[in-house]
Amino acid sequence: MNNKVLIVGAGAIGAFYGALLAKVGADVAVVCRSDYELVKEHGFQINSHDLGSWQFTPSQVLKKASEYQGKADYVILCTKMIEGLDRISLIADAVNERSSIVFIQNGVDTEQELIDAFPHNEVVSGLAFICSNRLQPGVISHLAYGKLSLGNLPGGVSEKTRHLINLFQRSGIECIGMEDIITGRWIKCIWNAPFNPLSVLSGGLATEAILKNQEELVRSIMQEVFEIASATGHPLPEDIIETNIANTYTMPPYKTSMLLDFESNKAMETEVILGNTVRTAERHKVACPHLKTLYALMKLREMQIELVNSNGE
Amino acid sequence: MNNKVLIVGAGAIGAFYGALLAKVGADVAVVCRSDYELVKEHGFQINSHDLGSWQFTPSQVLKKASEYQGKADYVILCTKMIEGLDRISLIADAVNERSSIVFIQNGVDTEQELIDAFPHNEVVSGLAFICSNRLQPGVISHLAYGKLSLGNLPGGVSEKTRHLINLFQRSGIECIGMEDIITGRWIKCIWNAPFNPLSVLSGGLATEAILKNQEELVRSIMQEVFEIASATGHPLPEDIIETNIANTYTMPPYKTSMLLDFESNKAMETEVILGNTVRTAERHKVACPHLKTLYALMKLREMQIELVNSNGE
Repeated sequence: MNNKVLIVGAGAIGAFYGALLAKVGADVAVVCRSDYELVKEHGFQINSHDLGSWQFTPSQVLKKASEYQGKADYVILCTKMIEGLDRISLIADAVNERSSIVFIQNGVDTEQELIDAFPHNEVVSGLAFICSNRLQPGVISHLAYGKLSLGNLPGGVSEKTRHLINLFQRSGIECIGMEDIITGRWIKCIWNAPFNPLSVLSGGLATEAILKNQEELVRSIMQEVFEIASATGHPLPEDIIETNIANTYTMPPYKTSMLLDFESNKAMETEVILGNTVRTAERHKVACPHLKTLYALMKLREMQIELVNSNGE
Repeated sequence: MNNKVLIVGAGAIGAFYGALLAKVGADVAVVCRSDYELVKEHGFQINSHDLGSWQFTPSQVLKKASEYQGKADYVILCTKMIEGLDRISLIADAVNERSSIVFIQNGVDTEQELIDAFPHNEVVSGLAFICSNRLQPGVISHLAYGKLSLGNLPGGVSEKTRHLINLFQRSGIECIGMEDIITGRWIKCIWNAPFNPLSVLSGGLATEAILKNQEELVRSIMQEVFEIASATGHPLPEDIIETNIANTYTMPPYKTSMLLDFESNKAMETEVILGNTVRTAERHKVACPHLKTLYALMKLREMQIELVNSNGE
């Protein structure tokens, strides 16, 4: 059947994708720590600009994976990738021999720990191109986009992953299988690596203002990501920088996820977006002075935020 | 006699150095726009941690240089180096055939416009290593340091400049003549170029925190300045980076001038410290990706400040 799903990390991303799967008949349970009481009682309210509004009542609402009843076909990890997150222990107790482990999370070079921890399970990498917010506990607002790319690791798209893709497609969003999802991650990174930190370090500029004023810097950063991806054996399309620049000009002014986190005083995904990129470059001896500067600056910025927070200001 | 001095820009730096010259008998007039009325009536109160407190009553208090009575031996320009500043028109009306034009201002590659505008006058470049503030109109607080380096352009130290150096020395501060003051400017730049922007872009960290956490980035930036200075024919001492790093570790945590401006919502000296450095690098075909990243980020940061200010937030 392959219709038992456990979403671990039912925030703006996880609850939305879980709600889509439930809509097309999957049995969707959630691990949901912060809004546990409210969600257990009332489920989620999903308000989507494109897909309408509906109630999502998970089959099980859990505080942790070990409470899961049954055998999950797909354990879908959707937490934010912040420092100190232990992905293995978040999901291990709900993983059985037949579970596919799907992670819909940001960043590059994040797959190996899952592959190593679950050598007998399919591990599926997911990329979400989505704009959704958790407006209040239990209420998810899906503002725009929603596309999902899925692919098995180290490559290919299994039959079981195809089944999951079909479920998502039937739910009304675009979902594609990628034979080389690691390349897909670098494709996402080439946009995230400039715009996420620049939006924060500029003090809050949207994508349009950044690009209009410092296109050369954006291109230099993208060029470094391009070279790093090539060095890892995942070359990106030759025209990807031009395409990204052109597409970003046509987007409405957009606040990056890092900027939204910054503005809400939440932890940012600096390490998986910039840190892992820089470390990959170093392993492959690719120079990346622009990325290194951004990464160091983000670490300083985070340090200053911590100082202010710890002073109670 | 060479004792008639006009200070143009009598702020925390200009009023302090003017007050020192007046203390040793020079006839010191000031152009002082923002605090004009108060200074005309009461002069300046100087409170120096090292040199005590005294009253400085300028011989003339002027709104603009054209009001100056007499023939200035030294026209000393001390304004902040912000965008749109027209240095020539600020001083031209008070410059006579015998005036030395002295500028005690930040930045590199700032001399040519003065040399071109006043081809028959001595042009003297000055570097102040000082920590002083204008606490309120007419009151200058000199907190620490104070050393001044002076040198003629394009090089050497003229007799008339020696005379000025002597006046400053007699007033109680350290003042030295530099045969190659342009090299002196690069020596100051190698410290300013990393610490000024990093303090702002980090959101307000002092020098110590920056250095402790991102020493490698600081060194990379200093290395670029080192190479740019060499390319212009003004090589810096081989050990300058080590010396700067070691000295900064021994300094008390220090807020840079750019950070102080940033925190007071004042214009920052981004163009003369970073912009001119990057443009000099480009002219001499020296790669400087770290400096370029910082410069672009500072331009974005300034743009965002402008947006916020213009929204009245």
